[in-house]
Amino acid sequence: MTNALYRKELFALPRDMIYLDGNSLGPLPKMVSGRVEQVLKDEWGSLLIKAWNDADWMSLPTRIGDKIAKLVGAPSGSIVMGETLSIKVFQALAAAVALRPGRNVILSDTGNFPSDLYIAEGLIELLGNKYQLKLVEPDDVALAIDQNVAVVMLTQVDYRTGRLHDLTELTHAAHRAGAVMLWDLAHSAGALPVQLQKSKAEFAVGCTYKYLNGGPGAPAFIYVRPDLIETANTVLKGWLGHEQPFSFDTDYRPAPSIEKMRVGTPSIIQLVALEAALEAWDGVDMEIVRKHSIELSELFIRQVESRCPQVALCSPRLAQNRGSQVSFRFEHGYATIRALIDQNVIGDFRAPDVMRFGITPMYLDSNDIVAAVDHLEQVLREKLWQRPEYQLRSAVT
Amino acid sequence: MTNALYRKELFALPRDMIYLDGNSLGPLPKMVSGRVEQVLKDEWGSLLIKAWNDADWMSLPTRIGDKIAKLVGAPSGSIVMGETLSIKVFQALAAAVALRPGRNVILSDTGNFPSDLYIAEGLIELLGNKYQLKLVEPDDVALAIDQNVAVVMLTQVDYRTGRLHDLTELTHAAHRAGAVMLWDLAHSAGALPVQLQKSKAEFAVGCTYKYLNGGPGAPAFIYVRPDLIETANTVLKGWLGHEQPFSFDTDYRPAPSIEKMRVGTPSIIQLVALEAALEAWDGVDMEIVRKHSIELSELFIRQVESRCPQVALCSPRLAQNRGSQVSFRFEHGYATIRALIDQNVIGDFRAPDVMRFGITPMYLDSNDIVAAVDHLEQVLREKLWQRPEYQLRSAVT
Repeated sequence: MTNALYRKELFALPRDMIYLDGNSLGPLPKMVSGRVEQVLKDEWGSLLIKAWNDADWMSLPTRIGDKIAKLVGAPSGSIVMGETLSIKVFQALAAAVALRPGRNVILSDTGNFPSDLYIAEGLIELLGNKYQLKLVEPDDVALAIDQNVAVVMLTQVDYRTGRLHDLTELTHAAHRAGAVMLWDLAHSAGALPVQLQKSKAEFAVGCTYKYLNGGPGAPAFIYVRPDLIETANTVLKGWLGHEQPFSFDTDYRPAPSIEKMRVGTPSIIQLVALEAALEAWDGVDMEIVRKHSIELSELFIRQVESRCPQVALCSPRLAQNRGSQVSFRFEHGYATIRALIDQNVIGDFRAPDVMRFGITPMYLDSNDIVAAVDHLEQVLREKLWQRPEYQLRSAVT
Repeated sequence: MTNALYRKELFALPRDMIYLDGNSLGPLPKMVSGRVEQVLKDEWGSLLIKAWNDADWMSLPTRIGDKIAKLVGAPSGSIVMGETLSIKVFQALAAAVALRPGRNVILSDTGNFPSDLYIAEGLIELLGNKYQLKLVEPDDVALAIDQNVAVVMLTQVDYRTGRLHDLTELTHAAHRAGAVMLWDLAHSAGALPVQLQKSKAEFAVGCTYKYLNGGPGAPAFIYVRPDLIETANTVLKGWLGHEQPFSFDTDYRPAPSIEKMRVGTPSIIQLVALEAALEAWDGVDMEIVRKHSIELSELFIRQVESRCPQVALCSPRLAQNRGSQVSFRFEHGYATIRALIDQNVIGDFRAPDVMRFGITPMYLDSNDIVAAVDHLEQVLREKLWQRPEYQLRSAVT
């Protein structure tokens, strides 16, 4: 298989490691270290406070937002970076419900990432429990959107199974019922083509440390549909979302741009690392990424199913219904993942029994996929997962 | 003057720069670069996802919280790091008002940092405008605390003038009236001794990029009085505040520890930089910091007042009423600060006419103070502030 976007040389991946966890934490792009050293020594260390102007730290959140916009089908000026994904979910959801004052249901599905649901719970509590968070099975979302639904809040790709929602179709379904659409693109950005603007979804959020390789704790992004930016409500009214933060007024006046969704002082070092990491995406066509992701995923599924009868595919079988990860269920999945990690094949585990493997064609090829299955086959055939050292749960599993 | 804590050699300060802006962004501690290089190459780059366990990334927010606790008179297990100061203000204020359901006033003062007030506005809006944000002059706070006040929310040190509130006395005044006390320690932590636990204040928040030198956008901290940790309400219910984040339940159950105030995935690179920066504080006695801060501040005031009659002190004259910065008003303050920066004397400006100078005895001595005044005297005497290049406002002033 030829792979026009294979850019493994851009990443500082350990030799002999097969890294199938880019859906959780992307590897270190080589451009990052030099750029971080520069921000420390030449900017923080030498310019100090002047760097906010002279190194243009202040515009990093929008500058990077524009770069991410290109990867998710959004126009310039519609995305800004900041804080964490949970915080951005809170902001987007609060702004979304404010657009439909007469309705009282926030609809989501059981495949959503728990933090999104927790954040919704917290917001509902703050709003005096006027809203109900309604969870349905992922396949039942479209049918559950009725006239009571204020906001449909979904993560496009299920973090456990990789099940992929049809972003355009569900957005249209939400709009037909008069509801606002909020997408979490945590497992979409950098994984597959997203047509945010075309879909007409009102809000989206996402993280940058997975497929975008921004580094551990890289800041999150928030998208607001351009026609709503001026009126969208901001509830986390931080000073950097103010029209004129440095006038230090006692009254809040939101910026008339996407910057209204900024809150506190941005994490400059993380943003600089992220900006450098995004260089790996220069000129990359997401359709090509998707094509290779599907080819590698299909290869992985075929190989595992023919050689590892002990495990059961729990990702959708049809490529069009799947993001860029493949998951298998196995009773001894936790210990199996530990055994694989011991062999330098890095996947991860999600309770109760899901083994996840991220497919990232930028630094994985078909040789890696086949080699990974070699190891999995060995672990299962020799029951290496039985070893005592693989049973103990660690803090992060 | 002897200065037992003078540790300028620990900081990568440019030669010939006199840095009087540590109240805005502390300088780069030399320990940071190596540690950040290590987290990039040896942890993110080599361990990748395993670093969450193997490099103990997951405990960084509490580990660093414990270090900061020592500097602000708080016990171990009462402080956790995360996101930005504005977010922590939101969390603390929401938890605080929930403790006094029958009361409807949030009391603050006009010297509070605007973002804290904006965040309060936003929270009040979310809570259905049941609360009133009442602002009084800083000197009138104690008298304004009545039976309607749910929460007294104050920044201990005024960001413009350096005016210092008596933390213990105002906390007691709040408690006598049955109100909850929330302190913002942005300009206190690392600047002067704080006796949080002794004061019995319920909540505190602060930032770490000023006197603690954690770097641009370093994460904020939140303190909850130990006896309230188990019951304090969390409203930003992020997954890392969950009792068992990796069980991925659809229902939120707050952690029974200060970790309940965690929200999203922490910014690991910034936390690591901060942890390294805090090594400069090992063994430092905040009483000694305060003593030297006062000596240098008094010297600065004496020198400026005797040599620069054009400017007027707007910080409190009495050291006991002042934090670790000294501010002067001057009609041409903006251009004067620009002229000083041109001479490598770095202070900053706050609208409408305040020139701020941060006093940080860890890397400033009396020679620096006198030299800074030499420059200020020259700028004023020769009216260098008249030059056209000093008139143009930059994005961050």
